[in-house]
Amino acid sequence: MTEAIRASLERSDAVICCGGLGPTQDDITREALADVMGVPLELDDSLAERIESFFAGRGRSMAANNLRQAEVPKGATVIPQVRGTAPGLICPVGEAVAYAVPGVPAEMKEMLERAVIPDLVARSGSDVTIASRTLRTWGLAESSLAELLAPRLEALDRAGNPTIAFLASGIEGIKVRITAKAKAADAVVLLDAEEENVRRLVGPFIFGVDDETMEVVVGKLLVAGGQCLAVAESLTGGLIGARLTAVPGASDWFRGGVVSYASEVKRDVLGVGPGPVVSAEAAEKMAAGIRSLLGSTVGLAVTGVAGPAEQEGQPPGTVWIGLADGTATTSSTLRLPGEREQVRQLTVISALDLLRRHLLEVPGRTG
Amino acid sequence: MTEAIRASLERSDAVICCGGLGPTQDDITREALADVMGVPLELDDSLAERIESFFAGRGRSMAANNLRQAEVPKGATVIPQVRGTAPGLICPVGEAVAYAVPGVPAEMKEMLERAVIPDLVARSGSDVTIASRTLRTWGLAESSLAELLAPRLEALDRAGNPTIAFLASGIEGIKVRITAKAKAADAVVLLDAEEENVRRLVGPFIFGVDDETMEVVVGKLLVAGGQCLAVAESLTGGLIGARLTAVPGASDWFRGGVVSYASEVKRDVLGVGPGPVVSAEAAEKMAAGIRSLLGSTVGLAVTGVAGPAEQEGQPPGTVWIGLADGTATTSSTLRLPGEREQVRQLTVISALDLLRRHLLEVPGRTG
Repeated sequence: MTEAIRASLERSDAVICCGGLGPTQDDITREALADVMGVPLELDDSLAERIESFFAGRGRSMAANNLRQAEVPKGATVIPQVRGTAPGLICPVGEAVAYAVPGVPAEMKEMLERAVIPDLVARSGSDVTIASRTLRTWGLAESSLAELLAPRLEALDRAGNPTIAFLASGIEGIKVRITAKAKAADAVVLLDAEEENVRRLVGPFIFGVDDETMEVVVGKLLVAGGQCLAVAESLTGGLIGARLTAVPGASDWFRGGVVSYASEVKRDVLGVGPGPVVSAEAAEKMAAGIRSLLGSTVGLAVTGVAGPAEQEGQPPGTVWIGLADGTATTSSTLRLPGEREQVRQLTVISALDLLRRHLLEVPGRTG
Repeated sequence: MTEAIRASLERSDAVICCGGLGPTQDDITREALADVMGVPLELDDSLAERIESFFAGRGRSMAANNLRQAEVPKGATVIPQVRGTAPGLICPVGEAVAYAVPGVPAEMKEMLERAVIPDLVARSGSDVTIASRTLRTWGLAESSLAELLAPRLEALDRAGNPTIAFLASGIEGIKVRITAKAKAADAVVLLDAEEENVRRLVGPFIFGVDDETMEVVVGKLLVAGGQCLAVAESLTGGLIGARLTAVPGASDWFRGGVVSYASEVKRDVLGVGPGPVVSAEAAEKMAAGIRSLLGSTVGLAVTGVAGPAEQEGQPPGTVWIGLADGTATTSSTLRLPGEREQVRQLTVISALDLLRRHLLEVPGRTG
């Protein structure tokens, strides 16, 4: 580790080390960083207290080895923990810097955003920023998106600032990232102008901006229209409800749902008739049934074959989506590629996109 | 890219390049690899045909730039795609090798397992393998696990083979990974013996081995007992059902569930009485209600406060789990740390672990 950190610091001004900060004998990042800095490790009393009180607060007794996490290379700055027990470190090495953050993804991410990135920005000492805005699309292949955007890609290639990049994000669709390099206020102007250009060319395929997920967008549209939603899920098994309720405040527009995995649940609880359950009729009955059972203004339903085995003679990837809003009950079908989990995830975002277009009164698109 | 690949090949026998194989102008991995190999790019006719038929099969017209994906550095071997359109590449560079795989995570993973790792093993030409086995635990802090396993950690530190490492995996618990270095058959013997040692010390905290997730384990136990499950979910919004139905064949033991997000759904559909819904009584009524509504032998229910706001005067992280099996209806409570999504995910695995211990008749443990 010491060698790798030294080699990295030779070609970079900053190195971020992720992991190895826990209490066990194989957590040696602290030792490696002290070695690179050429300083000893010292016990930080206030850190030790904090770790002891973390365990006390959860009613757990603390194993003695946890105190290793209070050891800090002399001259390093501690990044306090807000989620776990392993603090992060900012270690100056000459003119350069090495950071240590925990390996648990949620802890790493939180600490990177809260402490590491601001510290890097401060050290850079420049007032030119690199600002990005991401437009999230659903329903187009990357190549079709590139063809629609070809005039902009050519113009930007000549001008050089801002730039556009595509990020294929699987079940989250394809992201179009616009990046501008300028002073903060100027960068926003560049991003605004380019977003308008892109929207003119790709229109309703853009469902959200930056961190705005499909479920956040659907929630906003429901609230704006004074509506609330209930879902009936078969092959997705609860994934749609899980994504919707990941949004804080979802209770304002989401009532709940039924996971009708067994066919009898579709019939007994949702009123699906005899006959195939992977069908337009079943999807429509499920949508109308869940709307009525849970007293929502909109009912959304999915039924289909996730695989690996076929069902009712239909191959994996065959999916029906039903939508009921009290005025009309409609359905549409999809043939989705991939294995079980991909089919399930594609079903979720396809169903939510159909709902989004319905709420926006933009014609739907399948396939 | 060319410089980075060359520098990597100087210190390694193999380099894996991930991403940059798509159809757009910023996908330049093919060009960089051809440059490193010192060869031209050539159009592979059979690849071009495959890409054209991929689009035809999905009823989409193909943008011409997709054919860039059929360009192959002369002398490279193509790794065919099974999920998308961008093929992978195996590029010999002198005695070393560079691989190119797509950047979309699912495509990358599939291609790594199917083609890259087997090719690396073949190139290594050694019959000594490094074999690992992962024991998945739930319910212990990493430090407590290390204290329970201290006798083994000391013994293995002296002997050196096999070794043990801890992997804190957040909502998936803590993994104890045993690694042995030996000829294939001998490695299995070493792993078997050490697994037995670890099990003697940590017993029922181990819920699964290697890829065996909590939901797979619960499914096996339900089938073995001739039982089937229904779930009632409040704060998790469908996450429990979604995880259970990720298991192929879940319909053998999972009937479905109700996402009772709104309080009225808990009362009208599941028979929860008046009074607080974050309570032992509500969790028990939900468990008994879902068991009866969906005709399952076991009913599992969760209700609680995911946050960010408190509910009924209870802070975020307050969770009740209910379990009904026709003989008895019980409940237990948890105080979970973290933000909204962490509370929801910890609720899922805690509820499934409670069900696992119930089915195994091992006393439960909360906190």
